[in-house]
Amino acid sequence: MRIAIQDTYPDDVAHCYGCSRLNPHGYQLKTYPAGEQTESRFTPELYHTAVPGFVYGGLIASLIDCHSTGSAAIFKMQAEGKEPGSEEAPRFVTARLEVDFLAPTPLGVELRLVGRAVEVKERKVVVETDLYAGQKVTARGRAVLVLMPQTMAAK
Amino acid sequence: MRIAIQDTYPDDVAHCYGCSRLNPHGYQLKTYPAGEQTESRFTPELYHTAVPGFVYGGLIASLIDCHSTGSAAIFKMQAEGKEPGSEEAPRFVTARLEVDFLAPTPLGVELRLVGRAVEVKERKVVVETDLYAGQKVTARGRAVLVLMPQTMAAK
Repeated sequence: MRIAIQDTYPDDVAHCYGCSRLNPHGYQLKTYPAGEQTESRFTPELYHTAVPGFVYGGLIASLIDCHSTGSAAIFKMQAEGKEPGSEEAPRFVTARLEVDFLAPTPLGVELRLVGRAVEVKERKVVVETDLYAGQKVTARGRAVLVLMPQTMAAK
Repeated sequence: MRIAIQDTYPDDVAHCYGCSRLNPHGYQLKTYPAGEQTESRFTPELYHTAVPGFVYGGLIASLIDCHSTGSAAIFKMQAEGKEPGSEEAPRFVTARLEVDFLAPTPLGVELRLVGRAVEVKERKVVVETDLYAGQKVTARGRAVLVLMPQTMAAK
């Protein structure tokens, strides 16, 4: 059975608007291992417009951000010899996000995000992501993720 | 009268989910000149959660993105000796976005984005943005904006 990494976040940190199962308002992005990479898929709503016909950049940044935190959890577990989905996943947050918008991203098609690990350390993971619309990479991301600090934990 | 730069985008490019008046679903961010800088304000909904109590990074990236495109239009008009609000604004799109998440951004308070021009050229503007929650800068952005290419114009 394929289990999205976000579905194994502990309950108290599973409310992200972008990717968590306990946020009914949000995008509920799901990220899976895919060989040595990771993959998420998402079809924007038609109102997620930049200018007519194209996806607005904020959504693209948001998808790359959440895909990267999920990917960091997957890559970290794999580096520790753990199977993603087999136990609660570590919760990473984003320290830095870079997005290059290479071409306009068309609305009305499923987007596919493919992530690769650039660096996996004890508390820090760097992930690069290609965002595909069909066969074309329309945006590329690089994110620095760190394990969620205790200062963000629920009181 | 204070006119937001986004309210002077031409009708055919005023549908952005993040910042445009013709998108009833979206955030409708409004950006204004503020001395030599620019300013936007936005209060996230309580469901724009990262982990409980904090704003998710995708919204922060989205606000910085749209604040930057609006700021680029303001800075470009000012560089040409035009008064922002006095005529239709040039429509910039984002080529590159960088966000440093310096501290968790609390939910439940109004956020304030303050932009400054780093570079203003014929077709390209670079904007740096500080995002304030109260008195604290919790995120910092740098965006490279270019005039919207004709390939994105409505057919």
